[in-house]
Amino acid sequence: MMTQYGSTAGGDTGTGSAGERTRRENLDRMFNPRSIAVVGASRDPAKAGSQALATLAGFPGTLVAVHPRETEIRGVPCYPGLADLPEPVDLAILAIPARACVQAAAEAAARGVGGVFIVSGGFGETGPEGARLEQDLVDICRHTGLRLLGPNTSGFVNPAAGCIASFVPGVDTLAPGRIAVLAQSGGVNLSLGYLLNGLGEGVSIAAGLGNAADTDTRDMLELLAEDDNTDAIALHLEGVNDGRALYETLCRVTPRKPVVAVVAGRADIGDFAVSHTGNLMGSRDRTVAALVQGGAVVVDTLDDLAQAAAVLARRRLPPKPRSAMTLITGQAGPGLLITDALKTAGIDLPELGGATLERIGGLLPPMTYIRNPIDTGRPGPGFPDIVHAAAQDAAIDAVLVFGISEPSVLDPAQALTPAHEATGKPVLFGTLGPDGDLEKARRDLRASGTPMVLGPDRLALAGIVLDADARHQWLLAQRGDAPETPDAPGGAALTGPIDESAAKALMRSYGIAVPRSMLCESRAAAQRAFADLDKPVVVKIAAADVAHKTELGGVVLDVRDAAQLDAALDRIARIPTAAPNRVLIEEMAPAGVDLILGGVRDPSWGPCVVIGLGGVLAEAVADSAVAIAPVGRADVAHMLDSLRGKRMLDGFRGLPRCDRAAIADAAAAIGRIMRDHPGISEVEINPLRVNEVGALALDALVVLGDDAGVQ
Amino acid sequence: MMTQYGSTAGGDTGTGSAGERTRRENLDRMFNPRSIAVVGASRDPAKAGSQALATLAGFPGTLVAVHPRETEIRGVPCYPGLADLPEPVDLAILAIPARACVQAAAEAAARGVGGVFIVSGGFGETGPEGARLEQDLVDICRHTGLRLLGPNTSGFVNPAAGCIASFVPGVDTLAPGRIAVLAQSGGVNLSLGYLLNGLGEGVSIAAGLGNAADTDTRDMLELLAEDDNTDAIALHLEGVNDGRALYETLCRVTPRKPVVAVVAGRADIGDFAVSHTGNLMGSRDRTVAALVQGGAVVVDTLDDLAQAAAVLARRRLPPKPRSAMTLITGQAGPGLLITDALKTAGIDLPELGGATLERIGGLLPPMTYIRNPIDTGRPGPGFPDIVHAAAQDAAIDAVLVFGISEPSVLDPAQALTPAHEATGKPVLFGTLGPDGDLEKARRDLRASGTPMVLGPDRLALAGIVLDADARHQWLLAQRGDAPETPDAPGGAALTGPIDESAAKALMRSYGIAVPRSMLCESRAAAQRAFADLDKPVVVKIAAADVAHKTELGGVVLDVRDAAQLDAALDRIARIPTAAPNRVLIEEMAPAGVDLILGGVRDPSWGPCVVIGLGGVLAEAVADSAVAIAPVGRADVAHMLDSLRGKRMLDGFRGLPRCDRAAIADAAAAIGRIMRDHPGISEVEINPLRVNEVGALALDALVVLGDDAGVQ
Repeated sequence: MMTQYGSTAGGDTGTGSAGERTRRENLDRMFNPRSIAVVGASRDPAKAGSQALATLAGFPGTLVAVHPRETEIRGVPCYPGLADLPEPVDLAILAIPARACVQAAAEAAARGVGGVFIVSGGFGETGPEGARLEQDLVDICRHTGLRLLGPNTSGFVNPAAGCIASFVPGVDTLAPGRIAVLAQSGGVNLSLGYLLNGLGEGVSIAAGLGNAADTDTRDMLELLAEDDNTDAIALHLEGVNDGRALYETLCRVTPRKPVVAVVAGRADIGDFAVSHTGNLMGSRDRTVAALVQGGAVVVDTLDDLAQAAAVLARRRLPPKPRSAMTLITGQAGPGLLITDALKTAGIDLPELGGATLERIGGLLPPMTYIRNPIDTGRPGPGFPDIVHAAAQDAAIDAVLVFGISEPSVLDPAQALTPAHEATGKPVLFGTLGPDGDLEKARRDLRASGTPMVLGPDRLALAGIVLDADARHQWLLAQRGDAPETPDAPGGAALTGPIDESAAKALMRSYGIAVPRSMLCESRAAAQRAFADLDKPVVVKIAAADVAHKTELGGVVLDVRDAAQLDAALDRIARIPTAAPNRVLIEEMAPAGVDLILGGVRDPSWGPCVVIGLGGVLAEAVADSAVAIAPVGRADVAHMLDSLRGKRMLDGFRGLPRCDRAAIADAAAAIGRIMRDHPGISEVEINPLRVNEVGALALDALVVLGDDAGVQ
Repeated sequence: MMTQYGSTAGGDTGTGSAGERTRRENLDRMFNPRSIAVVGASRDPAKAGSQALATLAGFPGTLVAVHPRETEIRGVPCYPGLADLPEPVDLAILAIPARACVQAAAEAAARGVGGVFIVSGGFGETGPEGARLEQDLVDICRHTGLRLLGPNTSGFVNPAAGCIASFVPGVDTLAPGRIAVLAQSGGVNLSLGYLLNGLGEGVSIAAGLGNAADTDTRDMLELLAEDDNTDAIALHLEGVNDGRALYETLCRVTPRKPVVAVVAGRADIGDFAVSHTGNLMGSRDRTVAALVQGGAVVVDTLDDLAQAAAVLARRRLPPKPRSAMTLITGQAGPGLLITDALKTAGIDLPELGGATLERIGGLLPPMTYIRNPIDTGRPGPGFPDIVHAAAQDAAIDAVLVFGISEPSVLDPAQALTPAHEATGKPVLFGTLGPDGDLEKARRDLRASGTPMVLGPDRLALAGIVLDADARHQWLLAQRGDAPETPDAPGGAALTGPIDESAAKALMRSYGIAVPRSMLCESRAAAQRAFADLDKPVVVKIAAADVAHKTELGGVVLDVRDAAQLDAALDRIARIPTAAPNRVLIEEMAPAGVDLILGGVRDPSWGPCVVIGLGGVLAEAVADSAVAIAPVGRADVAHMLDSLRGKRMLDGFRGLPRCDRAAIADAAAAIGRIMRDHPGISEVEINPLRVNEVGALALDALVVLGDDAGVQ
């Protein structure tokens, strides 16, 4: 069966480039093909062109092949070239060497093919020559609307469409299902497919993007967001080139379909460079932060990725900062481990309401533990009613149930399904037992869409990802509420170098509080300023040619009287500089907790905001959090909550309870500064002194990049 | 078949208590029974006594039942009481209420039964009355040598012996294998059994200890260490009563059999009390530290526990501080994730030797990545030789191989087995693929004992636990080398309260350096001391009735001349105390990095040593490490390496590079102080000032417990 698109040439623009609609339609054709051509078909079983035909043997649509001489291979009709195909196919698989692919792609485009999949390597990943070939392919795609998967990938499968566009034998065993796999690596794509199969799950579309010359992660996310067969997306990323655009795509996609991601590069954690806030967080941290801000759930392993996607494909919680759950367990020991994991992850296991407890109490023998978790002991006839009662508790968003398989006393579908159906709340089942029991339980629960996972650890994981998904969606929804300073000055050009005084003026103009100060060009001016300001003051050298003020003795603290002022000015005057008498006299800040607040510009993710606790130890333990700008109050609260030393903010050891709203406002302002001034490569407030009533930038640094002042 | 033991009465002591040999033999009889009696047998399928007979239907030995009236149930001959049994059975299963168990146990002991297993609850876990029943059971065991499993447990299985001593249906599906499961909770025992089955593994003995009134973790570890069917032990702990003894057992067992453990209570991490070093680490941290010191590998989840035990049952590395590994992967993407996880865990992936690289280079096409990891691209015919070459590299202790199943190009047994056989080094396989392929690969690899795991995450885990096992065994072997101060004074009785000066004297007597100081009872004495000491000095109030010296202004730093000394003495004299002129004059310490070093006495684990970085932030981020005393240099190095802020010790940000040997010696001394003085409940050096050439105790606190001075 052929599609409705006779030509891939862009009909909706007149610019010589294919239109977006055509590109989008062709992407859909490629991944849901009803006709496929194998270019480079072969009778030699060792050749990719033979393997492609073998894996496509069960394809229910039209299958043709391109071969210079043959008229038929394995029962598949052959044509000498793509131009000779009787109809334009949705997908052409190019099982030919790299150097032949450009010509083939051009022919495919001319014949109205939807997309081509190139398995070969030998392109951008190998050097300049390969990169040229790859660019030629990209040009053909851009101009004609032809889509390209790869090159350098093991391909994709769409089991429901009977399309096994991969040369790896065994991939045809991947079952159809409702989880999409989207991997940067073909090997990870296959791994995830098999891991999902191991969980009893199948895939809708599972694609390895390879070099992603044309079809990239964003294209796929947009496609999958609209795909009726996909309920959740499992995403694997190694590196991200156009992060900001990916973030924006995620913001659109994740409210519709849950996205779970693994990001390679954990080993870089701890690999912190030592000189700048900009290097406090490795780029993987920025990637993870941006994915979370885009509403995705990020996990550490492929095992967790597969399991999380399987759960979220069936159930999501409504957006909420923290979801409340209850655990009902038939066995105390596993229940303790689940509770442990949930609490370690910060999940709220609140006290159940009095009516709930009373109802459950009537269903359980004395001496069972009825709080949260609820330990029923070995499940009895009242188990379904206990689940139901817990689900009906107004304080509870989701119910987790664990029970080792005992079919004679616990029928999972009967125990869990009514509670979900009556309340609409997710009710999840964790179990273990003989294989036969598990298969039956999974079959029974599938009808109601109840997630079932194996073992205590995975039930805890299920709860944790439900909560994370709901929180990230809540954060995403809040972001529209990020406070904007009405009088934000916009992108007035800055010229460098920018000294502390100018940097603080910039901060102040964005609403960040700074100490009262006066910039003095002479000793007399300094003395007048001293008279005017509240004592004690700090005297700082303000020469633009002095970078390391403190190290050179250019900062004198706690100056209380005229004699001390004179001594300070004398000391500073001895520092070799072109402007020895230029000083900043500044009121001493009250005591508080010192943070570092910075802004950096990531080549992929754009402006980012970084917050950490101040001091050498905080740097040594790398205790900081990053987010891509703009950030709202909720984002900053989330960042602060992720700090290991967050207790420092809450009145620890006699320290003041910090004004978190003031921190959030300052962080949001840093985001706006970065947004408004593309010429700034980095800003840093170190320290940001915080106490009960505000946050004060005691020192400020603004670094202009090479593109300083260029919008 | 009956055993050789006609009576359980202790024949090898004359004290009225059963001898250890009898107890040990009876434990062996109970867990490897050749004859079983079910007490409380029943025809009612809802009763435990019926379920017990059902699960034992396949038992190959002698099966009898006790029932007051019946002569036969389900074909099993019944006797009215245990006394009436024709022969003393190895195991009696008491499927009767709690209150009837004591009488039954007494009868069992009299009839020469090896051990009884009590499933019922209603004992110690329910209150004083139950505790009395439980104590009666314990008394019977102690006096007669009868062993008891439980009460309050789901029992145990020994599939190879055909013994399913559990009432949970389905447990009979657990396959025989070479991994022992030892769980505090019956539910966790079953969970682990099923998880192992899911990995294609079986169990030797899988036991849930329940209340562990008689048979406890130590007994089981000793039994399993000798068990010819057990190659690794999977251990689950919730709480440990006699930790010190468990540690000593582990020290004996783990060099013979690998032990992997999960400890419940992670949620307590971060639940740090705020006032003492003693509370810096929750008790779970002490448990984990002690298990590691005993040579066990501790993991976080049951999934990891099952997988780690399955790997270590087949391969161990020789004791070594860090093992070096190489990864050979057929797919780059999964290889990157494995490398990531290994490096994050600190595994050494060294450069391969030149000869190795040359040999491998000849086997691979150009442009494959031949460093460490080695990315072969799709496996080719040279794959086995690559594995072989890597295994032969002298720098490599273990080889990890990952390849998605492609039976036509990669035969796992052929690729991996020769490399192991030629070198004796562990060669591990990680894979994924269609179920049939995996089953065949697992079967093929089983013959050579090659561990096979599913997916990238688990291959990384396998490498990580091999390394941890080898490191913990190395640490255990080093512990004999803990430096002992020859002139250690032993347990001279201490009387309290102990002031700073006395505390420092104690430290000094154990070889811990303290600043030069003089305790002065008058202003004149203080002035003489000042003249004698190097300047600057610190002047500290030394009144025993002043606890918070610094907060009260009782510590004056940086005193450089006579006027400053007078001012300091004046200031201290104003503090209300019975001894206003008693001061400690002490030389100021050079700059350095401040640590906290402490000793605490854990009720279960005994004396422990705690090390953390100094300062409020370090406390807020809970960056400290604990070990049970005694500790050697290697232990302390391990502790310091576990600090998140360990970079602070290595010349971070201009700080001195710390003398780790001096820290280790001080920590070892703290351990000896705790050992020698049982009256001390807590010691704390805060700060321990460390620089390039030593560690100096600037302040010291010794707290005597209620048992102060009592040996």
